[in-house]
Amino acid sequence: MTLDNLSVVLKQKGEIVLENREIREPQLGEAQINVKVTGICGSDVHYYVHGGIGSFLVKAPMILGHESAGIVSKLGPGTEASGLKVGDRVAIEPGVGCRMCEYCKGGRYNLCPEMKFAATPPVDGTLCNYYLHAADYCHKLPDTVSLEEGALIEPLSVAVHACGRAGVKPGDRVLVFGAGPVGLLCGAMAKASGARAVGIADIVESRLNFAKSYCNASTFVLPLTNKGEANIDYSRRQSELLRNALMSIPEHGGLGGLPDVVIDATGAETCVQMGMLVAKNGGVVVLVGMGSSLQQVPIAEASGREVDVRGIFRYCNTYPRAIELLASGAIDVKPLITHKYALDDSIAAFEHVRTGKDGAIKVQIVA
Amino acid sequence: MTLDNLSVVLKQKGEIVLENREIREPQLGEAQINVKVTGICGSDVHYYVHGGIGSFLVKAPMILGHESAGIVSKLGPGTEASGLKVGDRVAIEPGVGCRMCEYCKGGRYNLCPEMKFAATPPVDGTLCNYYLHAADYCHKLPDTVSLEEGALIEPLSVAVHACGRAGVKPGDRVLVFGAGPVGLLCGAMAKASGARAVGIADIVESRLNFAKSYCNASTFVLPLTNKGEANIDYSRRQSELLRNALMSIPEHGGLGGLPDVVIDATGAETCVQMGMLVAKNGGVVVLVGMGSSLQQVPIAEASGREVDVRGIFRYCNTYPRAIELLASGAIDVKPLITHKYALDDSIAAFEHVRTGKDGAIKVQIVA
Amino acid sequence: MTLDNLSVVLKQKGEIVLENREIREPQLGEAQINVKVTGICGSDVHYYVHGGIGSFLVKAPMILGHESAGIVSKLGPGTEASGLKVGDRVAIEPGVGCRMCEYCKGGRYNLCPEMKFAATPPVDGTLCNYYLHAADYCHKLPDTVSLEEGALIEPLSVAVHACGRAGVKPGDRVLVFGAGPVGLLCGAMAKASGARAVGIADIVESRLNFAKSYCNASTFVLPLTNKGEANIDYSRRQSELLRNALMSIPEHGGLGGLPDVVIDATGAETCVQMGMLVAKNGGVVVLVGMGSSLQQVPIAEASGREVDVRGIFRYCNTYPRAIELLASGAIDVKPLITHKYALDDSIAAFEHVRTGKDGAIKVQIVA
Amino acid sequence: MTLDNLSVVLKQKGEIVLENREIREPQLGEAQINVKVTGICGSDVHYYVHGGIGSFLVKAPMILGHESAGIVSKLGPGTEASGLKVGDRVAIEPGVGCRMCEYCKGGRYNLCPEMKFAATPPVDGTLCNYYLHAADYCHKLPDTVSLEEGALIEPLSVAVHACGRAGVKPGDRVLVFGAGPVGLLCGAMAKASGARAVGIADIVESRLNFAKSYCNASTFVLPLTNKGEANIDYSRRQSELLRNALMSIPEHGGLGGLPDVVIDATGAETCVQMGMLVAKNGGVVVLVGMGSSLQQVPIAEASGREVDVRGIFRYCNTYPRAIELLASGAIDVKPLITHKYALDDSIAAFEHVRTGKDGAIKVQIVA
Repeated sequence: MTLDNLSVVLKQKGEIVLENREIREPQLGEAQINVKVTGICGSDVHYYVHGGIGSFLVKAPMILGHESAGIVSKLGPGTEASGLKVGDRVAIEPGVGCRMCEYCKGGRYNLCPEMKFAATPPVDGTLCNYYLHAADYCHKLPDTVSLEEGALIEPLSVAVHACGRAGVKPGDRVLVFGAGPVGLLCGAMAKASGARAVGIADIVESRLNFAKSYCNASTFVLPLTNKGEANIDYSRRQSELLRNALMSIPEHGGLGGLPDVVIDATGAETCVQMGMLVAKNGGVVVLVGMGSSLQQVPIAEASGREVDVRGIFRYCNTYPRAIELLASGAIDVKPLITHKYALDDSIAAFEHVRTGKDGAIKVQIVA
Repeated sequence: MTLDNLSVVLKQKGEIVLENREIREPQLGEAQINVKVTGICGSDVHYYVHGGIGSFLVKAPMILGHESAGIVSKLGPGTEASGLKVGDRVAIEPGVGCRMCEYCKGGRYNLCPEMKFAATPPVDGTLCNYYLHAADYCHKLPDTVSLEEGALIEPLSVAVHACGRAGVKPGDRVLVFGAGPVGLLCGAMAKASGARAVGIADIVESRLNFAKSYCNASTFVLPLTNKGEANIDYSRRQSELLRNALMSIPEHGGLGGLPDVVIDATGAETCVQMGMLVAKNGGVVVLVGMGSSLQQVPIAEASGREVDVRGIFRYCNTYPRAIELLASGAIDVKPLITHKYALDDSIAAFEHVRTGKDGAIKVQIVA
Repeated sequence: MTLDNLSVVLKQKGEIVLENREIREPQLGEAQINVKVTGICGSDVHYYVHGGIGSFLVKAPMILGHESAGIVSKLGPGTEASGLKVGDRVAIEPGVGCRMCEYCKGGRYNLCPEMKFAATPPVDGTLCNYYLHAADYCHKLPDTVSLEEGALIEPLSVAVHACGRAGVKPGDRVLVFGAGPVGLLCGAMAKASGARAVGIADIVESRLNFAKSYCNASTFVLPLTNKGEANIDYSRRQSELLRNALMSIPEHGGLGGLPDVVIDATGAETCVQMGMLVAKNGGVVVLVGMGSSLQQVPIAEASGREVDVRGIFRYCNTYPRAIELLASGAIDVKPLITHKYALDDSIAAFEHVRTGKDGAIKVQIVA
Repeated sequence: MTLDNLSVVLKQKGEIVLENREIREPQLGEAQINVKVTGICGSDVHYYVHGGIGSFLVKAPMILGHESAGIVSKLGPGTEASGLKVGDRVAIEPGVGCRMCEYCKGGRYNLCPEMKFAATPPVDGTLCNYYLHAADYCHKLPDTVSLEEGALIEPLSVAVHACGRAGVKPGDRVLVFGAGPVGLLCGAMAKASGARAVGIADIVESRLNFAKSYCNASTFVLPLTNKGEANIDYSRRQSELLRNALMSIPEHGGLGGLPDVVIDATGAETCVQMGMLVAKNGGVVVLVGMGSSLQQVPIAEASGREVDVRGIFRYCNTYPRAIELLASGAIDVKPLITHKYALDDSIAAFEHVRTGKDGAIKVQIVA
């Protein structure tokens, strides 16, 4: 079966099937990658369960997956400059810009309106045996970085971009909302950027216990909103408690002061609200989580203290840097890999992530 | 009467009286300024009408006014380094930081928690004949800049700070919501920063006509929200129209593209919403207007396009730069002065601004 | 003869010939441009006279010219996204990056090691009737910008990039060394960026007179170095005089203070020295001129005052912005065009620039 | 003797004496500090040996020392906002700006022309028992940071400022010239800022061995310039070798690529030359070492690759951040302390540093 191109196809909302797709030849500038490891992202599951994300709707069968690493199996013409050779182990950066618009030329290709991004409809994803991709978006891994780690460079890139947009500086205090994979990686990346103290807040205590050991974070348990109370009431009350907790010194579980940077990796309105309320004067709130389109936020309280609010959309120019951080040991992503499935068991893998059982953090599919 | 210290005192909400206050001697580092011109700001009127702004409540009689220029009448000890001499014409920068906190030392003294700001309770303002102020916050005016212009450096500073925080670059497209004094100055400052095209949107057509001639802006008339419809519905619909209008070329009244920078000088929720919706990918929305504490905004739509949201709180390090802009003719503030009152006619001046009659843009009180 | 492809070919050092080259068909992503106007740049003349610049040596016949504008005569496949149509008037941005390296993806494609730049050996230039170029590097001109102005966008781009790297801010004082085309454009661009005062220093008084009227600059005549005295002695002495002159107010011909930004558009060691000495504490010196490889400079005196030294190499992402500046009238390049030649009279044009006679500023060749 | 104010006074070039100076009372805003630990800096020794540094000449007896920590022994009036209490352990930031000039207000108080800096003539230094200092420039140490470490915050601040000005980002490659205390701290700070790989180059192999273990640096031994060869010849040849060494992967002792950032902590012309030659395109060279006033450097080669050259002058706003880095364990300065002397044995301490015997890195004087 390994010579065939087994592919994980979302036929329609709620229906994933395994199909054997034709193996295509790499065209101008393309590499053919024998995909070896693919992590499942929340967005994959969201397409699976809901059939779309925002305006991106799955209208035709689409191969899923975009967190992948593999081995170069063939190179198309015009790939010399990439320096790739058949047999190279690479991490696949899944979004390729048009290379011609103001965003691509200006260094922010993630904002390119013509971007082709794996497993964003209608573009097929990477969950197959042989995937074609722009060679220069396939990043060679050093010997010391495994393919499993390579597949995690995609979510790590989100964290690298988030901390870059936040401008985390050595000595900063950073608070992260959300202890899922992206939140944890943001915490680790903040540490790697020299943050003096990192705090992670979540409503699930077991996740926080992991966070504590994973990135040496101070942790803050948030109670669930009481049905019936307005979000903002809950947020204001929690912000008051959180502010006090943050002010205490690290030895007592705090950050020793209000955060210079808040990163929201939840998208929850209450967390965005709290972030705006607890960031220090002149600080930054970075929104990583995709929240609901319209949110009620204390924007005047934030802006009147010159707390900047910055969103991120995916990432750009992060892969080489993320690889360096793995190679130098500044960040360790291996503890995040909690479960592995074989490619032909992909449907079970998706169900695992959907149900979130067994403390799953990152579930990977290996070929 | 000129030797006395006639002062415009807000006794309590709704009650302004003229009092003759004691003339005090300048202390260490202070200059005594014989105030000659003071503009009335919306915040002065807000204190007058509402007795407070946010958490700043007028609990004891307070002298109003903070947009002032005057003549140095006496210098206290320790003012040599300021270079001031008795007789110098100066613009008064009304907020003085503690000079010791991280914000004061770090170059953002406007965020100093201990700032003393004229006519922000409980600190007395400048609407009197003799005002004491830190000498180094009194900025000498060149011969070519009048005291009337000098008094307008305060609101101009807001615009300088707003455009600085926005990072307006030569060739940018800038859209301003609100054609009041601050909005107009933001438009002028954007032009002086090299903006290729400036647009101003407002609901009052007569103001927009002034804007058109004042800063050569493209203008966009916004209809009033229909009672009964949600703000966001109105905003989405207007944004669609506005986006089309903005895309048309300047010759047809547009900006030739979506704005790199949006500056909201209204504080209105609908304007903040529209700003987030019409800014281009990777653009910036700067919030200058003080809006209601909690606002419902399409923050995910903004952050998912990496549109940054930045507030401003007053300004810092703007006076010397603003003076240069007036002296070099890059900005002309004189057309904004529509009405003048004598100091002993101050109550009428406040009423004039409160009622907003006769197309008042900036009303000044001259001693 | 207009249907043919008359081309201005540098056969070897000192020998330019006119040849009729084959008209080629545009390939993937390319536009064929009917070149209409080409300015002669100092570098073209340098290749003509010296046969090379630095490590770029003319080893085979090469078409000269890279400051061009023309009309789209044909479009290759894959050019739809450029939005170009046959008949469009365009400015040609002469350097095309590889689109794949870290510099191209990171927004600084001018540093791409694989860049192909018109008339940099061995790449042919634009001085011909029909030139093939990447369509997305052909920038459509608005109706209000002529082809002559379009050809000047190339040197204007240098000025846009220089002022961008310098971070010229509204209210800044800017001093430019050199009153040639690039120096003049830097002065104009500094003004368009909001500079409060611009000074231009040169050894040729007639050039300075033009500078005075062209960009309303304060001008400073520099005496020639006396043979026999060390550059640095001359520079220190001149810096002292210059500093005093700069400190005087604009009304007296100064800048009113030391420059925030110094731009050297000469490459002369003495000017670099003076720039480092007269920039204010914490200021910036931008090196635009190509000087000798090794220079003796007071780098410790500059670095000990945190005066940054930044070079520029060509430019990137400047054309759209430069077009906006021309279209909005913020910059007027027309006064710089002092002489025009027909394409078949190109050799005379080159001789004109080489000898520098008749106060030539910019000589253009029109087809 | 501990109740007295034993002071280490430089009478004149080459002559240090111990004197008992009067204990003065703290004035407005001042704290009296019972100094406990003071490190000897190269500049102290330079004053001792040469009687001056550049234009700063020792014209009258001056107390030496500016790298100090101690205990608050008394507080003057107006020190409440500092939050200090008698008995607090503090690090003394030795330079106090005027708090009124554009640099002090703008966040770069190190450039204040009126700065008073301990042991920069004519201002007395900290090598005494009781030292008076602006209370807000005395930074409280957390319990986990010793006074010995506190005294090292001064040179650490240089490194924090250097890396800040360099803009070291996570994943960067950083090369430091010079393995003295400041070079080592720059290496450690680069690591703490997330640098993927740090290299240190020096001519003394034993220092490099320390560097290797101290900050896990790749090390590069530079041969001494041969008398008779021009610096630049040596530098070009060494740069070629260095470039190759840097390109090799960390496992083979290189950085895996050319440095994004070069920090020169030597001031040696050859090192500045090499730095400009080996920094990658678009990189940064930061000059920390005080070199000779005039240097012959390949500035055109650097500027033509957009390699920025930035100097630093002392530091600003670094102490709170540096304390966080010590408290969080991100940087460990203790290994740098190689020798200690009692205050009354100060002359021997100075002789120790002057002769550089016994592999001295940092020599401290303890009271």
